[in-house]
Amino acid sequence: MSVVLNEEKLSTFQNYESAVRSYCRSWPTVFGRAKGYKLYDEDGREFIDFFAGAGALNYGHNHPKMQEEMVNYIKNDGIIHSLDMGTEKKRNFLERFQQIILKPRNLSYKIMFPGPTGTNAVESALKIARKVTGRKTVIHFTNAFHGMTIGSLSVTGNSMKRQGAGVPLHYTVTMPYDNYFPGANTAEYLEQFLEDRGSGVDLPAAVILETVQGEGGLQAARDEWLRKIADICKRWDMLLIIDDVQAGCGRTGTFFSFEQAKIEPDIVCLSKSISGSGLPMALTLIKPEHDRWQPGEHNGTFRGNNLAFITAAVALEYWKTEQFSMEIREKAALVTKRIADILDKYPQLQGEARGRGLMQGIAIPEEGLAQKISKQAFRCGLILETSGPKDEVLKFLPPLIIDNEGLHEGLDIVEQCMKFVLSK
Amino acid sequence: MSVVLNEEKLSTFQNYESAVRSYCRSWPTVFGRAKGYKLYDEDGREFIDFFAGAGALNYGHNHPKMQEEMVNYIKNDGIIHSLDMGTEKKRNFLERFQQIILKPRNLSYKIMFPGPTGTNAVESALKIARKVTGRKTVIHFTNAFHGMTIGSLSVTGNSMKRQGAGVPLHYTVTMPYDNYFPGANTAEYLEQFLEDRGSGVDLPAAVILETVQGEGGLQAARDEWLRKIADICKRWDMLLIIDDVQAGCGRTGTFFSFEQAKIEPDIVCLSKSISGSGLPMALTLIKPEHDRWQPGEHNGTFRGNNLAFITAAVALEYWKTEQFSMEIREKAALVTKRIADILDKYPQLQGEARGRGLMQGIAIPEEGLAQKISKQAFRCGLILETSGPKDEVLKFLPPLIIDNEGLHEGLDIVEQCMKFVLSK
Amino acid sequence: MSVVLNEEKLSTFQNYESAVRSYCRSWPTVFGRAKGYKLYDEDGREFIDFFAGAGALNYGHNHPKMQEEMVNYIKNDGIIHSLDMGTEKKRNFLERFQQIILKPRNLSYKIMFPGPTGTNAVESALKIARKVTGRKTVIHFTNAFHGMTIGSLSVTGNSMKRQGAGVPLHYTVTMPYDNYFPGANTAEYLEQFLEDRGSGVDLPAAVILETVQGEGGLQAARDEWLRKIADICKRWDMLLIIDDVQAGCGRTGTFFSFEQAKIEPDIVCLSKSISGSGLPMALTLIKPEHDRWQPGEHNGTFRGNNLAFITAAVALEYWKTEQFSMEIREKAALVTKRIADILDKYPQLQGEARGRGLMQGIAIPEEGLAQKISKQAFRCGLILETSGPKDEVLKFLPPLIIDNEGLHEGLDIVEQCMKFVLSK
Amino acid sequence: MSVVLNEEKLSTFQNYESAVRSYCRSWPTVFGRAKGYKLYDEDGREFIDFFAGAGALNYGHNHPKMQEEMVNYIKNDGIIHSLDMGTEKKRNFLERFQQIILKPRNLSYKIMFPGPTGTNAVESALKIARKVTGRKTVIHFTNAFHGMTIGSLSVTGNSMKRQGAGVPLHYTVTMPYDNYFPGANTAEYLEQFLEDRGSGVDLPAAVILETVQGEGGLQAARDEWLRKIADICKRWDMLLIIDDVQAGCGRTGTFFSFEQAKIEPDIVCLSKSISGSGLPMALTLIKPEHDRWQPGEHNGTFRGNNLAFITAAVALEYWKTEQFSMEIREKAALVTKRIADILDKYPQLQGEARGRGLMQGIAIPEEGLAQKISKQAFRCGLILETSGPKDEVLKFLPPLIIDNEGLHEGLDIVEQCMKFVLSK
Repeated sequence: MSVVLNEEKLSTFQNYESAVRSYCRSWPTVFGRAKGYKLYDEDGREFIDFFAGAGALNYGHNHPKMQEEMVNYIKNDGIIHSLDMGTEKKRNFLERFQQIILKPRNLSYKIMFPGPTGTNAVESALKIARKVTGRKTVIHFTNAFHGMTIGSLSVTGNSMKRQGAGVPLHYTVTMPYDNYFPGANTAEYLEQFLEDRGSGVDLPAAVILETVQGEGGLQAARDEWLRKIADICKRWDMLLIIDDVQAGCGRTGTFFSFEQAKIEPDIVCLSKSISGSGLPMALTLIKPEHDRWQPGEHNGTFRGNNLAFITAAVALEYWKTEQFSMEIREKAALVTKRIADILDKYPQLQGEARGRGLMQGIAIPEEGLAQKISKQAFRCGLILETSGPKDEVLKFLPPLIIDNEGLHEGLDIVEQCMKFVLSK
Repeated sequence: MSVVLNEEKLSTFQNYESAVRSYCRSWPTVFGRAKGYKLYDEDGREFIDFFAGAGALNYGHNHPKMQEEMVNYIKNDGIIHSLDMGTEKKRNFLERFQQIILKPRNLSYKIMFPGPTGTNAVESALKIARKVTGRKTVIHFTNAFHGMTIGSLSVTGNSMKRQGAGVPLHYTVTMPYDNYFPGANTAEYLEQFLEDRGSGVDLPAAVILETVQGEGGLQAARDEWLRKIADICKRWDMLLIIDDVQAGCGRTGTFFSFEQAKIEPDIVCLSKSISGSGLPMALTLIKPEHDRWQPGEHNGTFRGNNLAFITAAVALEYWKTEQFSMEIREKAALVTKRIADILDKYPQLQGEARGRGLMQGIAIPEEGLAQKISKQAFRCGLILETSGPKDEVLKFLPPLIIDNEGLHEGLDIVEQCMKFVLSK
Repeated sequence: MSVVLNEEKLSTFQNYESAVRSYCRSWPTVFGRAKGYKLYDEDGREFIDFFAGAGALNYGHNHPKMQEEMVNYIKNDGIIHSLDMGTEKKRNFLERFQQIILKPRNLSYKIMFPGPTGTNAVESALKIARKVTGRKTVIHFTNAFHGMTIGSLSVTGNSMKRQGAGVPLHYTVTMPYDNYFPGANTAEYLEQFLEDRGSGVDLPAAVILETVQGEGGLQAARDEWLRKIADICKRWDMLLIIDDVQAGCGRTGTFFSFEQAKIEPDIVCLSKSISGSGLPMALTLIKPEHDRWQPGEHNGTFRGNNLAFITAAVALEYWKTEQFSMEIREKAALVTKRIADILDKYPQLQGEARGRGLMQGIAIPEEGLAQKISKQAFRCGLILETSGPKDEVLKFLPPLIIDNEGLHEGLDIVEQCMKFVLSK
Repeated sequence: MSVVLNEEKLSTFQNYESAVRSYCRSWPTVFGRAKGYKLYDEDGREFIDFFAGAGALNYGHNHPKMQEEMVNYIKNDGIIHSLDMGTEKKRNFLERFQQIILKPRNLSYKIMFPGPTGTNAVESALKIARKVTGRKTVIHFTNAFHGMTIGSLSVTGNSMKRQGAGVPLHYTVTMPYDNYFPGANTAEYLEQFLEDRGSGVDLPAAVILETVQGEGGLQAARDEWLRKIADICKRWDMLLIIDDVQAGCGRTGTFFSFEQAKIEPDIVCLSKSISGSGLPMALTLIKPEHDRWQPGEHNGTFRGNNLAFITAAVALEYWKTEQFSMEIREKAALVTKRIADILDKYPQLQGEARGRGLMQGIAIPEEGLAQKISKQAFRCGLILETSGPKDEVLKFLPPLIIDNEGLHEGLDIVEQCMKFVLSK
């Protein structure tokens, strides 16, 4: 299938919307419907979704049971907006999250609704870590992405986004992520800075990290590196914050991305797919001993999105058994295999496999090449994003509910676009 | 009506939710349904809503046309989550906002979707002001409230919230709001600091303010003060940012709260009632000459909430004629009159009338008294918040679509609770 | 006397020295000798000194006893440089300062040698105030001047100097000095910010101030204002730091400038004239209960300047009786009288008398006029500086040991230059 | 010789001086005279000086010609204190520095007098680097020491000193110094952070470093590492600031410590031994193209210390020929040899040779051991400091004019004290 682009249909956005808009530039069409792992623009063109709302649509578009429950609730005048008042649907979500997610994993966290987006969760995590420890500095890692508000931006690596702040960013120290320096153990690097009383790194309140860096180029930390970081946090009495906004909610094959490494963070940030439906929602999970907030010390108008609580509770159904995890891992293996084949077949790409779970991709060193492939993919009916500091990584992020047929179809388009771009 | 409180029904929240929760402490019940200006808890008890989701429900709960359009959209697999991709519903909203709001007011703004909450709008406004001017300092005012993320918190006055940051807040200077010092023109104070090369106030990038301070105690700035501030901004080449998150969307009787003062801000922040339905949504309006963002320099996962776009477009219908504005002003006059009567009747309160439009209230100097009245009001079936640095202001914030009967009923409860509390 | 200027003799400075040099631009000659209240350039031209090394030469140039003791010490191989090791001359200074200055005034301070300049004293004062209180913010005042290093600069008002930092300055809040707003009590202004939990001013660690602002334009705070500030500090548990670098050592008629107001600061900064001879030396006086330094927590190579200790001890002789104080006050009265006469005689100046003690001057509103007079004064044999944010204040700062003849001679030149400049 | 300690003679310091005092604790006596490389306490006990005023006395104590010129100047009423006015002695120093130091080395620098101490020089260097580049961040290195005022402290590594600030320190990034990680090239680490647009290190204004870290434990950077850093600065358009306060003025065998590496810094900070006599003085050398100060943008009362200019000019005589350099290098070789012998002889020390030139020492891993040796050395008549983050390095810093006999005598005491301490 080939899409005929019509720039005119975007004139409303060009005329009225701020220059900051971006995705509508990459995928220049106007979308109308979406179902499962497919999107449709207003002219009826179909796209396979290898983007999943940047990780916000792990359960696909318009899940039928979510639709049904939302419709019933709306029709029955269910309360929509409730701040942090008690509501039936919030209570239901809290109980299910406890029973289905926390309890079976032997995890004990207090649940905070910090506002409906990932950056709200990160900001609240930084606040509580600083409050609990009485310290200020937070360690983050190269190519980390944690959000656009000043607190979150100060632990984000991307220089363009940082400059967008318009002010220097404080109270944070950047450290090399796993595998940053070839041959070096960067966790030891961090530890030496902490051990040395003359290093210039003041004792931090916390370390914040993504186990797989979604925006940073699909860098996946090794389990032993994560454990070493967790050990360092314990030794130095720093809180470990896992930002699981993109890698959580099953994206890597387990509900939390850190389960495989057998670490237990002090604070976990969840958002994106936590509502299941793409509706704005976020959680901050806080170990009970660190839940030292005063009532209302952090607040926000949209903490209580009841439609999101409804669909979030439906999404949790997937986690009642091991079945869903197993399926994700099988699909991940398929993607790994296809990537290996592609790298074999196109050595001229000098590509590098990246990521894990259904959060894999290919890094392509030649500047601009990944972006060309992504652009061509759109023309061929595939929504496919790039990431990394130079947009050098093709990022395969389909809804987790995609079937093998969909995966193959999408990866076939990727391969065909590579071939096309390399041939030019 | 008298509510029998049942603390047990809140045990889920007590057990699983973070200590930061607050509104569920003030109004200890579990809500289920809501319609117009009324809420119902799961036991069927009815409450008049003088709170309106802290200003997020200006058009009341579950507006029938909004419900209908949401249900149809969901049933037809309309795309729900779209980041800043083009969608039919986003285009429709953009066009209507242009036609119904901006054009008739001769206002020219580029529209930015900064993420779905007020603090996202404020953070983006601060960023663009700093970028455009190349300066860093932002002037804010005593008792300002702009949000909980670090950028917004740094222009917020409340000391408890500021301490929640866990780090000192930078790049901002607090100045006295209108009427802060009895008998002094505080705009002249600000100007003297700017004029004096030895004042220690570095030339700012921007001034941010609310025309009526919702959280800060319903302080309403006078039109001439606002115009003086706007003049100062022009003279010193600083951007004027109006945070209209709470006072906007008709709350004071005009769509924008600053219309009456005849000023034209450089940047306007909207959220809360912009979606009309209580769904998370926010806008940053930027004068075209200041729209100097790079694509993607500020982003966020939940910028594209299509259900919110749908209900936001329905809400704009109210603004096609002058009718709605007139009605709000009539109701506001009724509230003003009732407040005057109350102050007359209960001189022992030493109360002070505050606010304007449907954003009025009564400041009560005796510490704790306003909170007691608010607590009693809940028992009597009225949802009524306090605000101000010491929670000393009773805040009447009903949905704008409330009728006179509802207003009287609510204010009768207020009066009856005052009497009750004063008699003890 | 009229000086013929010879720019060529300054070529060495122009060729080799940085553009930052300033006084050699105001007084374009090369000085050789100095004695008492007179300077001589290398061509033998004599100048009356109304500048006194910006307050560093209160006891005049080359005091004979100081010369004698320095020469003897040098000749006998006395140790010159000693960091904070114990030396005979340091011990002697400590004992005399205790006996002559602190004890008779019932003052109890630990003496810190923070490095040899005023800014070292201020930096150490800010550190200890923050350490003792555990808070960060320091209140300073409009047109304050406390030094050029980043800590001191952050409590300095002058915008040109602040911009020189090249970075925004943090942890400080500027408040209006006494008489800043006509008709307003600025101490109450400060107090309201502290009382209001929503003011945006976080509870400060300390207040730092000069009782008379030397660089800021010879603003002298009233005694009752100083007492009110001292009360506020007590009430809010903030430390009161008096920067007596320029106004101390007798400049206002008492050894400490704050004696007249009968306040007792928590920390006092002394430098400039403390060595008596113009040699670099500074002290930080700390109330014993606040002396919570760890050994070496603040250090510096030039804390132990033994030549300075010697001349400082000689200077203290002046304070053994009340005689010196009385003489200063008499001379101050003479200056006050002459200023009043001048303002009478030249109403077109629209001049305003400023300052107190031998730290008086005339503010002249017409931009550039004070500087013209100062320039002309140099040509006529008088060294006379301007101060204030626009260099609008003529500053009469002679050595305290000047006699009446010298004062009249200098003020005659001032008057003659005014006449000359006004006539052009 | 064995010193009998008399704590009572220190009672004045204990009673009157702040707890921050430190060297008088290490060397508990009261010094009186000093000559060449020897100090004498008031009881006539002699000490060999392996400390040299922490590097401020490279030319020894009380150099006869310096004494003579100071005495003559004082006797003839030479002007002592002159801020940055032109004086004969300042002109003379400027001309000699140009002729003897800069010209023969083909170096072109504007000379700034930033105030009389090293930290003044560093603060001014940071300011000008930020002004020239318009950027804020300055890179410093682990275990760097640059001074105690907030600007300098923010580029200093020592955590105790940093905490003394009482506020978090901003606008700086710490990077690993040469040899920080065994086997890693830390200059490449730095470069990778700069190259990676996602590293979180914002493009810096400058890099500041000591070629040999005096306080940081006598770490000496390799020439190739210094050249690599200089290259990185050029490539990224950052200024290279060499803090030569301790390592300069001949300490490493050349006047500037960076001559051997053949690099040309943009800014050089000099202090400590620049006056030659231990009198407070400092210089900031600025490449002419970076000398973009406004007049008076940085100032200070004690910039013009004419006694220091006199002795500084005498000290420059040493640099008229190559002779002095050669002698230093010969003595350095002697020290290197003795250290190697000691390490051989006492393998149980597990000692490591550190430093270069007459700035060498021995790192001893066992905690507290170096301090015990230093303490014992004092008892045996040797002034010997420790340095490094855990005070683990014995630091041999004699005056450069010491003779071989003095060196041997001092090192004999070191060895004897080691033996004594190891035997206990």
